[in-house]
Amino acid sequence: MKAIGFNAPFKLEDGNQFQEIELNIPEPKGKQLLVKIQSMSVNPVDTKQRILPVEHPPRILGFDAAGIVEQVGEDVTMFESGDNVFYSGSPTQHGSNEAYQLIEEELVAKAPANLTPEQAASLPLTGLTASETLFDVFQISQDPEENKGKSLLIINGAGGVGSIATQIAKQYGLKVITTASRKETIEWTKSMGADIVLNYKEDLKAQFEQHDINEVDYIFCTFNTDLYYEKMIELIKPLGHIATIVAFNDKQDLNLLKPKSVKFTHEFMFARPVNRTPDMIKHHEYLKDIAEKVEQGQYRHTTTKVINGLTTETLYQAHQILESSTMIGKLVINVDNQ
Amino acid sequence: MKAIGFNAPFKLEDGNQFQEIELNIPEPKGKQLLVKIQSMSVNPVDTKQRILPVEHPPRILGFDAAGIVEQVGEDVTMFESGDNVFYSGSPTQHGSNEAYQLIEEELVAKAPANLTPEQAASLPLTGLTASETLFDVFQISQDPEENKGKSLLIINGAGGVGSIATQIAKQYGLKVITTASRKETIEWTKSMGADIVLNYKEDLKAQFEQHDINEVDYIFCTFNTDLYYEKMIELIKPLGHIATIVAFNDKQDLNLLKPKSVKFTHEFMFARPVNRTPDMIKHHEYLKDIAEKVEQGQYRHTTTKVINGLTTETLYQAHQILESSTMIGKLVINVDNQ
Repeated sequence: MKAIGFNAPFKLEDGNQFQEIELNIPEPKGKQLLVKIQSMSVNPVDTKQRILPVEHPPRILGFDAAGIVEQVGEDVTMFESGDNVFYSGSPTQHGSNEAYQLIEEELVAKAPANLTPEQAASLPLTGLTASETLFDVFQISQDPEENKGKSLLIINGAGGVGSIATQIAKQYGLKVITTASRKETIEWTKSMGADIVLNYKEDLKAQFEQHDINEVDYIFCTFNTDLYYEKMIELIKPLGHIATIVAFNDKQDLNLLKPKSVKFTHEFMFARPVNRTPDMIKHHEYLKDIAEKVEQGQYRHTTTKVINGLTTETLYQAHQILESSTMIGKLVINVDNQ
Repeated sequence: MKAIGFNAPFKLEDGNQFQEIELNIPEPKGKQLLVKIQSMSVNPVDTKQRILPVEHPPRILGFDAAGIVEQVGEDVTMFESGDNVFYSGSPTQHGSNEAYQLIEEELVAKAPANLTPEQAASLPLTGLTASETLFDVFQISQDPEENKGKSLLIINGAGGVGSIATQIAKQYGLKVITTASRKETIEWTKSMGADIVLNYKEDLKAQFEQHDINEVDYIFCTFNTDLYYEKMIELIKPLGHIATIVAFNDKQDLNLLKPKSVKFTHEFMFARPVNRTPDMIKHHEYLKDIAEKVEQGQYRHTTTKVINGLTTETLYQAHQILESSTMIGKLVINVDNQ
């Protein structure tokens, strides 16, 4: 089967070092599924992982997939051949930039029946990241009534994670404030359900005041945490919770959290699969909930750009687009899987 | 009335700069109580506040009190003259190093009926700090059954906060591991209920392994956070929560929280009163719960040293003892309140 990988970390300006690799189709064991990949989306994490040292070449990226179960391991209980599934996976294993992928069933759910694979592929990584941040980190209630009156600020509302986080937070009763600045991104984040959109190029505190907001209960940073660290502490309520998914470049002063007794979490969606936690099945459960809400018309997929055919050229092009930081919603590659 | 205060920040090595001050007995207004102080305990926060700039001299410290309600403001609903009460207070107001103190009723509860004032005075600040850390920060369940199987490591188990945190955590079903090293502190923390006591002078990870502990769900640091920051991240479970009450001396690398998606909180017990949060009454509720558990014989007071008479000399002596970092349990001063 065909896979696209590379043998050593590389920067895009050094040219396209993705390679087409021929591998044997693997055999699923235990709780593994063998999935025939139809579509994958490309995420910022792909571009970050591309520049990390390669421990076991070839490195095959890809952390979002929609496909069809081809074969199941002997301990699989939740899926069978022919099931349409979607999932994110784990950076410790081969990713979805290949024709067939092995994946453990706890990390997988059936894809929303009303979406095409290229639509479904937009949701797993971002949906899991948003779900963990809202339910595991902020520990918002599963009952929307209990979340009424609570407010969430999402830094960078129009990005992939911001887009699905806005929808989930609204579904579960939160008031959602996002940041954006271009006409297209403002319209997009509003279409995802944002109650208020602030211009991140202007002072956020002043804009809070214009909207009669004093402070918010939760802040979710999906862009440049160093830049927003002190500002987020200014905007959070006492005993509030700030989460980021973007690594810092600099050390920070944790004492700034003290006056308001603020909680801070560096959310990492792969913490469960990488650390093999006993509750890994949460990924299955979150994806199942997302699929149901999509089927009920409560959530929308976030695919905005589709590239046909998985080749070294299309993957390189996708990484270029991701690194330009201009994406609204998600970029998906359809595999031409013959 | 007599109060002990000072006009400018000072270090103990610069001599005793506490002064006896004569003030008018204040009048309680609104939701304020006027409390005749019987006993107060001295906490590390007193020694830290003593070296901060004094904005409105004289500065009167004291963040733990047991006393008798002398008079109530016109909006007070929960207390009446003659009630025995205990409370911590707020650093934005006069503390308890005085004969009579004003305090808002939301911050106060009736003192445990089976304790003397010098015993009751050991509990408010440490009990509130421990309660907020367990219930607001870690968000452990109010139902001990739901906390079964969860584990908490307390750095410095024999200190004031560690002592009551151990008792509350045990009462609510957690497994508690503490650190200590001297014979007396090991015995003390065991008497508070610690399941396992580790020697902080030896490697904690190796001692975890000796006790068949891999990682813990929660870590509560009550001593030198800089020293333990990286070690705590090593010892915490994925998606676990670390809290400290001790300010950092250095900036830290927050990216270390990422691989295990760890939550970090700088707990500050005064965040509610200082920020005048709408849920300030939580202090009343936590103290009420502690008083009930003391009356039921489930919690013990932590007073271990008593000094009689509030004077400039006894207060200076108390600060000296606190700064020596050798206290086991709590130091209390009885007011000679004629």
